[in-house]
Amino acid sequence: MQGALSIGVIGYGYWGPNIVRNFHGLDSVKSLFVCDLRSDACCAAKKNFPSVQTTTDVNTILSSPDIDAVAVITPVFTHYDLAKKALENGKHVFVEKPFTSTVAQAEELIELAEKKHLQIMVDHTFLFTGAVRKIRELVDKNVLGDLYYYDSMRVNLGLFQHDVNVIWDLAPHDLSIMDYVIDEKPEAISAHGKPHFSKRLEDVAFITVFFGNNIIAHFNVSWISPVKVRTTLIGGEKSMVVWNDLDADEKIRVYDKGVKVTNRKGVYDLLVSYRSGDIWAPKIQQNEALKEEAQYFIDCILQDKRPINDGHAGLRVVRMMEASTRSIHDEGKPVKLRG
Amino acid sequence: MQGALSIGVIGYGYWGPNIVRNFHGLDSVKSLFVCDLRSDACCAAKKNFPSVQTTTDVNTILSSPDIDAVAVITPVFTHYDLAKKALENGKHVFVEKPFTSTVAQAEELIELAEKKHLQIMVDHTFLFTGAVRKIRELVDKNVLGDLYYYDSMRVNLGLFQHDVNVIWDLAPHDLSIMDYVIDEKPEAISAHGKPHFSKRLEDVAFITVFFGNNIIAHFNVSWISPVKVRTTLIGGEKSMVVWNDLDADEKIRVYDKGVKVTNRKGVYDLLVSYRSGDIWAPKIQQNEALKEEAQYFIDCILQDKRPINDGHAGLRVVRMMEASTRSIHDEGKPVKLRG
Amino acid sequence: MQGALSIGVIGYGYWGPNIVRNFHGLDSVKSLFVCDLRSDACCAAKKNFPSVQTTTDVNTILSSPDIDAVAVITPVFTHYDLAKKALENGKHVFVEKPFTSTVAQAEELIELAEKKHLQIMVDHTFLFTGAVRKIRELVDKNVLGDLYYYDSMRVNLGLFQHDVNVIWDLAPHDLSIMDYVIDEKPEAISAHGKPHFSKRLEDVAFITVFFGNNIIAHFNVSWISPVKVRTTLIGGEKSMVVWNDLDADEKIRVYDKGVKVTNRKGVYDLLVSYRSGDIWAPKIQQNEALKEEAQYFIDCILQDKRPINDGHAGLRVVRMMEASTRSIHDEGKPVKLRG
Amino acid sequence: MQGALSIGVIGYGYWGPNIVRNFHGLDSVKSLFVCDLRSDACCAAKKNFPSVQTTTDVNTILSSPDIDAVAVITPVFTHYDLAKKALENGKHVFVEKPFTSTVAQAEELIELAEKKHLQIMVDHTFLFTGAVRKIRELVDKNVLGDLYYYDSMRVNLGLFQHDVNVIWDLAPHDLSIMDYVIDEKPEAISAHGKPHFSKRLEDVAFITVFFGNNIIAHFNVSWISPVKVRTTLIGGEKSMVVWNDLDADEKIRVYDKGVKVTNRKGVYDLLVSYRSGDIWAPKIQQNEALKEEAQYFIDCILQDKRPINDGHAGLRVVRMMEASTRSIHDEGKPVKLRG
Repeated sequence: MQGALSIGVIGYGYWGPNIVRNFHGLDSVKSLFVCDLRSDACCAAKKNFPSVQTTTDVNTILSSPDIDAVAVITPVFTHYDLAKKALENGKHVFVEKPFTSTVAQAEELIELAEKKHLQIMVDHTFLFTGAVRKIRELVDKNVLGDLYYYDSMRVNLGLFQHDVNVIWDLAPHDLSIMDYVIDEKPEAISAHGKPHFSKRLEDVAFITVFFGNNIIAHFNVSWISPVKVRTTLIGGEKSMVVWNDLDADEKIRVYDKGVKVTNRKGVYDLLVSYRSGDIWAPKIQQNEALKEEAQYFIDCILQDKRPINDGHAGLRVVRMMEASTRSIHDEGKPVKLRG
Repeated sequence: MQGALSIGVIGYGYWGPNIVRNFHGLDSVKSLFVCDLRSDACCAAKKNFPSVQTTTDVNTILSSPDIDAVAVITPVFTHYDLAKKALENGKHVFVEKPFTSTVAQAEELIELAEKKHLQIMVDHTFLFTGAVRKIRELVDKNVLGDLYYYDSMRVNLGLFQHDVNVIWDLAPHDLSIMDYVIDEKPEAISAHGKPHFSKRLEDVAFITVFFGNNIIAHFNVSWISPVKVRTTLIGGEKSMVVWNDLDADEKIRVYDKGVKVTNRKGVYDLLVSYRSGDIWAPKIQQNEALKEEAQYFIDCILQDKRPINDGHAGLRVVRMMEASTRSIHDEGKPVKLRG
Repeated sequence: MQGALSIGVIGYGYWGPNIVRNFHGLDSVKSLFVCDLRSDACCAAKKNFPSVQTTTDVNTILSSPDIDAVAVITPVFTHYDLAKKALENGKHVFVEKPFTSTVAQAEELIELAEKKHLQIMVDHTFLFTGAVRKIRELVDKNVLGDLYYYDSMRVNLGLFQHDVNVIWDLAPHDLSIMDYVIDEKPEAISAHGKPHFSKRLEDVAFITVFFGNNIIAHFNVSWISPVKVRTTLIGGEKSMVVWNDLDADEKIRVYDKGVKVTNRKGVYDLLVSYRSGDIWAPKIQQNEALKEEAQYFIDCILQDKRPINDGHAGLRVVRMMEASTRSIHDEGKPVKLRG
Repeated sequence: MQGALSIGVIGYGYWGPNIVRNFHGLDSVKSLFVCDLRSDACCAAKKNFPSVQTTTDVNTILSSPDIDAVAVITPVFTHYDLAKKALENGKHVFVEKPFTSTVAQAEELIELAEKKHLQIMVDHTFLFTGAVRKIRELVDKNVLGDLYYYDSMRVNLGLFQHDVNVIWDLAPHDLSIMDYVIDEKPEAISAHGKPHFSKRLEDVAFITVFFGNNIIAHFNVSWISPVKVRTTLIGGEKSMVVWNDLDADEKIRVYDKGVKVTNRKGVYDLLVSYRSGDIWAPKIQQNEALKEEAQYFIDCILQDKRPINDGHAGLRVVRMMEASTRSIHDEGKPVKLRG
């Protein structure tokens, strides 16, 4: 394999055009194919990117010897089939989030890719934003100290999905970010939710993730909020972070605030000391996350290195969502996370 | 009993001075007694309000024939004993929130008060704010339509309590407001939380309340947030409310936004219509809630009318908190709410 | 002339691509020509819009019998020459703001266009935004009552221009909006400013506009503010408007607040009554202003109707800026506005 | 004179109670007298502070041999007479802002005080806030580098004054802060304003202050804004400050942003480099400014040191306001500031 790849993109709906645009802009992509079952989507792709080749036949993409890697940008229930065929035909795969519909599917795809020495990358785009990288850097440098909690809210008057609930739609973002930021294994998950407009698709949901140590994580996702909120609080002993993704200029603020137990003789002798100092909004790199992710996918293939958002990362997120769904149906009973 | 009452206030710590100041300002209070075990607290009361009579002996208050009503402004674990004695001695009681430590205590006090034809009022101060009254008015006038959810966040870098967890400290506010705003009986409650600094007192907690109908309620309370948040979202079919209690000028915003199912043939035929119109910040009455509540307590006694925040209201909140505590200790398993 | 026009766009720098994109999307544009002196700009135009014809020779555009109207999207010092030639050659003109460098140039172009029965439209894009239309509607419907003041702030860490000062760069927006919203003739203008980085180009400036009646208008423009502010306050007797153009969801707020003199016997008897009621954020139409403006330009030509942003509107703005410049150089002395 | 003083406060209206409360709380105040012409104001003072002695006769205060210093907390037009008599009687004076109604009055009082070796302190309270001290510290430490501009906005739906315009009411705050922060002499001042409700008292005004060097300062004050704004931008070459006094937690933000000319060969060769880095909100001391100022007044008297807010500081502010008034009446013509 040389210094440039040919990519086939399956699915040119809501997200597909962004994927095509970003692969299209890379020097290391030598040719680009787009497949969509709807011929008008193919026309649109051709109009926007005259140099791409389009087809309505997915097998053209999956079997073409000219294609090195396939990007699966389709509804989640189709990911497994498409990714599996691509891998079987020797192609690396880039899969839209969430990776698969079930843990079993994810495990099978990982095994298949490893056997065939192929790469899987799951499109956890947020990991490539300046904001998430900065948070990870702050955690890595121990600016926060021991972590206490991760509390995220992602709500708005949303686009209803017809095949997945609000957790499968919105939570992959936050669960993948938490998975990247917190270097600990979650042990159990509990979730609650309510479908207001259909029998089975929750439009409001709350997820709590338990870790073995001191950390608790919580996720509030909704399609029916009048206001858009994209805020995550991360608390540690040494400092705390507020990430407001809607703030154009100060997405990340680091609060030199903390709580520390200075004496623990007993409940009534518990001495807690507070600290409240400066607030700091580090400059965040302004990049297009998806462009960096696309380049990273190519680089991982060419240099044979494992992506941070590989199949295992995708699997961990799917495992948490599968457990969330089970917990919701079991009235919030916690579900253990093995693996 | 004539048109003015004598009030005895037990407890002159953090909240007591506010209670004394507000009863002190009322024409319908003819004399005011203050009791605190600490003599310096009594001195402080005497200095601030020269006309009050002070004592360090609680029985003076509880047994004085000159006192018509007793305000119990002490730690929650003492509420039951003090209120019981006051009622037994024929005095009306005003009890700081939360009403009692247990459901059984609350039930016993209610029964005792009813037997003796005495009033119990629980200090759910927020019910007397302009903001909560406006929300109740909007719900009563069906401005929101059928309710979908109630989602509240009350977090800050807080004052740790040594005898109760963050739920018993902060959630009585929100649970009493929800109880007042939503005219439905909650059926079950599930809660999660984490103690980071002591063995048993959670400093971060999440509560979910289930109703028989379409409504789900959620409460996020924390003592260890770097930022202070006091926000409640209430969503209904016709419109949605955002209550930001930290906004000086626009605490309540009504969003003419909604979601409506227009066709429900099946999941894939589900047609959801969105509506997005004007936003409206109604003028909120600027009052001192506690002053109105104090006057209302007197009025309820003199006119023998049952307060909205009577013992039953207090009991409903205690029941939800007791269930929350049980749920936390049972890994979030939902606890049914009877009664 | 039939139901579709051919447009030639001169200048494909910062703003030109937006003009081309919007004319390109219109059914009533049958062909589109782009001219830029730099051949790489022509290549970029060709690449983005394969159907446009490009040239580096401006006379091709100005003299082509196939072109009905010319859009002049070049630095302001070139507007007069280019627009004049276009008009002389019988072409309607669309001119980037500010219209011209001097009042005299603007007057000459207007006269020329009227003699030749051609249209001039000046690109006061903001007049086509939902926000400005809503403000105009509120004024027209007398929601504000008699106007008291117009106070605008447009500051940020800006792109320095090499040929004009911050007034000529930023104030055309605000002056054209004020001109559209306030149906009164300004009588005089005073301005102050400071050049910090060059000898003569102010990077911070303040403009005050006087009207014969009760109204005063004020403009604060800066290229060297650390924060971006785009806020305009408009006060009237009956209500007041705050327009924050950076607010995604609530750009316009109408405050039911007012001040009214109820007795004017003398200074010490002056009785002023305040009113403070609801706040209301009307839904703003979400359109692409430039697209509507482009369509409106075509419509005005085809239907021979005079645009709201015609040469006279452009002239009024240029007159205010020319007076501002004179006032700055005369230490803020007010300059009368004739015409 | 020993380690404690007796203070007489003249005027117990809007601001007087705050002055009394703060002097009352000081150990170094041995006795406190309050004078107000209205006997009900005296009663109120006596009720709130039983230990103060009250009188309706101002001469009691001005001539009492028991009083060391007099605080003049009355309308501005009375300051000169009262302060003069106090000084003549050998008393130090603390004068509410603005110091006097005219420059001549201020100069006379300063001369008198110096002759009699008495202190004058003008109540520029803001100089004692944590925010202003922090700004001064940032300037002193050259964090901002060379200053470019000072741009302040202080507007709200205000309390109309019957004897002074909005400049004399609101601008003393900002002018005294600017005077404290910027270590340069202003050279000229220009102002515009408009009276909407009376013949001569402007309720909206804009002031521009010119310095000999690179700095320009601007002040926007209004009594008829629907929203309350208290924001000051201060720009320098190295960094810029935004002070939002309404922000509870982050009043001061320091932007590591700047503009620097790197090449100045000519206008078209002007190379400007921008810098955009972190944002930093230093912790601000939470004090009661007036309490510190009261203590400082006592300390300056006892230690015979000259206050930062002495008569000269008061004079500089009065001089700028007198010049502003003259400029407004002369259509904004700049007025030179001598002295």
